[in-house]
Amino acid sequence: MPTQTNRNNTKKIKIGKIEIGGGNPIAVQSMTKTKTSDVEATVKQIHELETAGCQVVRCAVPDKESALALKQIKQRINIPLVADIHFNHEYAIIAAEGGVDKLRINPGNIGDSGKIKAVVDAAKAHKIPIRVGVNSGSLEKEIRKRYQGHVTAEGLVKSALKNVEMLEALDFHDIAISIKATSVPLTIKAYELISKKTGYPLHVGVTEAGIPRVGIVRSSAGIGAILAMGIGDTIRVSLTGDPVEEVRVGYEILKSMELTYHGVSIISCPTCGRTDIDVVKIAQEIEERTRSIKQPLNVAIMGCEVNGPGEAADADVGLAGGNGVGLIFREGQVVRKVPEAEMVEALMDEIESMTIV
Amino acid sequence: MPTQTNRNNTKKIKIGKIEIGGGNPIAVQSMTKTKTSDVEATVKQIHELETAGCQVVRCAVPDKESALALKQIKQRINIPLVADIHFNHEYAIIAAEGGVDKLRINPGNIGDSGKIKAVVDAAKAHKIPIRVGVNSGSLEKEIRKRYQGHVTAEGLVKSALKNVEMLEALDFHDIAISIKATSVPLTIKAYELISKKTGYPLHVGVTEAGIPRVGIVRSSAGIGAILAMGIGDTIRVSLTGDPVEEVRVGYEILKSMELTYHGVSIISCPTCGRTDIDVVKIAQEIEERTRSIKQPLNVAIMGCEVNGPGEAADADVGLAGGNGVGLIFREGQVVRKVPEAEMVEALMDEIESMTIV
Repeated sequence: MPTQTNRNNTKKIKIGKIEIGGGNPIAVQSMTKTKTSDVEATVKQIHELETAGCQVVRCAVPDKESALALKQIKQRINIPLVADIHFNHEYAIIAAEGGVDKLRINPGNIGDSGKIKAVVDAAKAHKIPIRVGVNSGSLEKEIRKRYQGHVTAEGLVKSALKNVEMLEALDFHDIAISIKATSVPLTIKAYELISKKTGYPLHVGVTEAGIPRVGIVRSSAGIGAILAMGIGDTIRVSLTGDPVEEVRVGYEILKSMELTYHGVSIISCPTCGRTDIDVVKIAQEIEERTRSIKQPLNVAIMGCEVNGPGEAADADVGLAGGNGVGLIFREGQVVRKVPEAEMVEALMDEIESMTIV
Repeated sequence: MPTQTNRNNTKKIKIGKIEIGGGNPIAVQSMTKTKTSDVEATVKQIHELETAGCQVVRCAVPDKESALALKQIKQRINIPLVADIHFNHEYAIIAAEGGVDKLRINPGNIGDSGKIKAVVDAAKAHKIPIRVGVNSGSLEKEIRKRYQGHVTAEGLVKSALKNVEMLEALDFHDIAISIKATSVPLTIKAYELISKKTGYPLHVGVTEAGIPRVGIVRSSAGIGAILAMGIGDTIRVSLTGDPVEEVRVGYEILKSMELTYHGVSIISCPTCGRTDIDVVKIAQEIEERTRSIKQPLNVAIMGCEVNGPGEAADADVGLAGGNGVGLIFREGQVVRKVPEAEMVEALMDEIESMTIV
């Protein structure tokens, strides 16, 4: 499968200080869930997202107060700000004037070509990109009709490309595209199709994935499968819940696919009838105590002799425990042998000696 | 992407009453984490797994007491039982005599061809299949050497196929294969490679995926990407934690990929600055109250007018709320308009009228 250096080649665009496409690292996005017109609450949530590592943040613009609030919000945050526009193109113009770093429009509901031209003119004047963001829930009626009233991958792609062509006809090329469906296979198929038909960077996600209990699985499976095909320049995990969790899961997906190396990655065995040590407790404690580490480090916590020594030796730091005794590995070599009560501290000693906490 | 009816064609094998491969639905497996020699604890855990929908269960066999215990365990459970054998081929023979439904051997540690022949003879006598289960942590040293000491997809595949050939040379063909690595991209690549080289059914998983916080993402991304290629006949999610959670996540992955339709699938919007109703609370409550429903049903819970009406109309039952009012959809039509306080009950009424709880 493709690696960071072997991905679909897309055009590079800039969202404020963040570049996506053209071989840049995949950026993690999220969206605020506060009323955008409530500047205090929105800025507070964006600061929480910044702390979690969110690289680009988007705010809904359902009314004029929200559109006007973006200027104040922008002045108080450190990451690029995207205005999410539906129905009313005038809010896009206010947002652009307020200094946002990107506009997202939904071709299903932005209106006629005159309105799109007004948005493009604003984006040109302020040198910001536009994302054409298609969703299964708001696909244009005339496109649905062509596919017997159903939302299909072909229909989603057609909607996106039709709107991209409208932007191009206005000599605007600073574009990103998303085509998100609630169906995971439909989303995968749509991204596979569009990636063959466009060179613009792709914003990837599964829309309305649900509460974390199900939404984390749906987002990981969908975004994971799309990234595994070499597709995707920025991702957003949509969860019905805290947006900070969206950012955490986004990074976990990128770490899983080895598309980012950020902080400690712990592999730990599922435990079974062979396990003598409390792997669950040890893994949880190590995970909690290493969350603040930014440096990439692979840690293995293994409970028996089957895969334990092999995995522990392959990791940067590893523990292979059994019969109340733990072997601590560092870069492939056993460096210590400790009793069970000292395993966590011994492992933390090695981790700390290899990282700047 | 491939659907249930458009997947890689594999040989059908039987694990007790469960068939895998040859177009059968993908079976969800798990593994007990109790001491297998503790029959009471193991049977209790298997009953919990059965209730969760686990279709095949595996027990580790680290010692002779565990091997002998399998006979008693088998008599008290309802789902097929697999013996997980490492190092000692004699335990495999005891397990087969005890009535287990499949043997799993790890080619990296089972020993010489004489020992493998003894296991094959036992499997033949008891008409049970063998899974050749390769793990990155226990890949044969001579294979690692060929790849500069590294675990590679090619090495994992070579290990599996070498061992499959040993079984075939003994005229044994009742085989399943797994090649699990801790690296998600390596696992995806290994399954992609082996699926082109064998027709035996494939047992898919990411090994040692970690505690649920990270392991759910790693397993969903890896298994999701493999299933999206049309590969996989049975899956096991490995989590450092409760095995019941492994089964739940396994089904969520299959539901995500639309490879099983089992119970209620809820899509719900992530909420944003447009949202007026408490989507998080409503979605959580509906999720909890519909967990016991076995019948497939798509439910949409949406917080605004952008994608709300479209998604609510596409689901079997849907709620699109805003301004304190909720529209309840059923099979594409608005059937009720209710105030916010009645949304959950109105939605549950529709769900219950369409399902047998």
